[in-house]
Amino acid sequence: MGLLAWQSQIKRAEKSLNGFTDEECLREIAPGKNRIIYLYGHLIGVHDELFEILGLGSRLHPGYEELFLTSPDKSGKEFPPVAAIRQAWSDVHARLDAAFDQMKAEDWFARHTRVTEEAFAREPHRNKLNVLISRAEHVAYHLGQIALAKK
Amino acid sequence: MGLLAWQSQIKRAEKSLNGFTDEECLREIAPGKNRIIYLYGHLIGVHDELFEILGLGSRLHPGYEELFLTSPDKSGKEFPPVAAIRQAWSDVHARLDAAFDQMKAEDWFARHTRVTEEAFAREPHRNKLNVLISRAEHVAYHLGQIALAKK
Repeated sequence: MGLLAWQSQIKRAEKSLNGFTDEECLREIAPGKNRIIYLYGHLIGVHDELFEILGLGSRLHPGYEELFLTSPDKSGKEFPPVAAIRQAWSDVHARLDAAFDQMKAEDWFARHTRVTEEAFAREPHRNKLNVLISRAEHVAYHLGQIALAKK
Repeated sequence: MGLLAWQSQIKRAEKSLNGFTDEECLREIAPGKNRIIYLYGHLIGVHDELFEILGLGSRLHPGYEELFLTSPDKSGKEFPPVAAIRQAWSDVHARLDAAFDQMKAEDWFARHTRVTEEAFAREPHRNKLNVLISRAEHVAYHLGQIALAKK
């Protein structure tokens, strides 16, 4: 069910983001706020980290961390073109889907790599499924913002 | 875990909404967009509906549906004062908490009242927990918007 929540948020995000042309992706969600392109890259960067957090391999786009996670929008750093960002979105989510397909139900209840064994013994809800649910909520948070940029 | 996701979103929402004075709640989240007070009432109205959807009793504030769910902001309809909205938030969530405390784990996997038995047989994930997870995402969606109103 956590997986369904994730998949439904990703579908909604795709529908929303595909609804903007490359040029419109340079729009701010509200005056003086983040641009759509930044939130696009931000979501990709956060989801690319899931490979490591869930123990599924290494990231596809490690450069996104500095551009879209640890730096704010309009940091002066050059972003990839929107077409490349769209491609990165497809690549990351296709590989995540494939990895999730291989996971058994019980794998989701195992410890994720950012929690120690000791902490997990105390707080067994800090499992992989919990990470996925919190990422789905993170998508929803930014989708609410991106929706404001629609004309 | 779905319950934890819900509780954590409600806590975040309270922190965010309590961070605005009553007067600041009349601010728009972005120029020409919904005001905080509308989203505040909107979340209460949606959560008040949970009593019926989850079979926990009847709503506390049925009037919120017309004000905050079926009408847009600035419909010309008079809203309750912010203090009353804050009180409604507390009442609805305290009563939801109490009702959730009485539920057993298996209750969450039962059919909710808005899905027919036939549809539930075909799609057994349409249970009460699924409703709660989707409401937690709905909170996140609007919290992302409310965050834009912070100065």
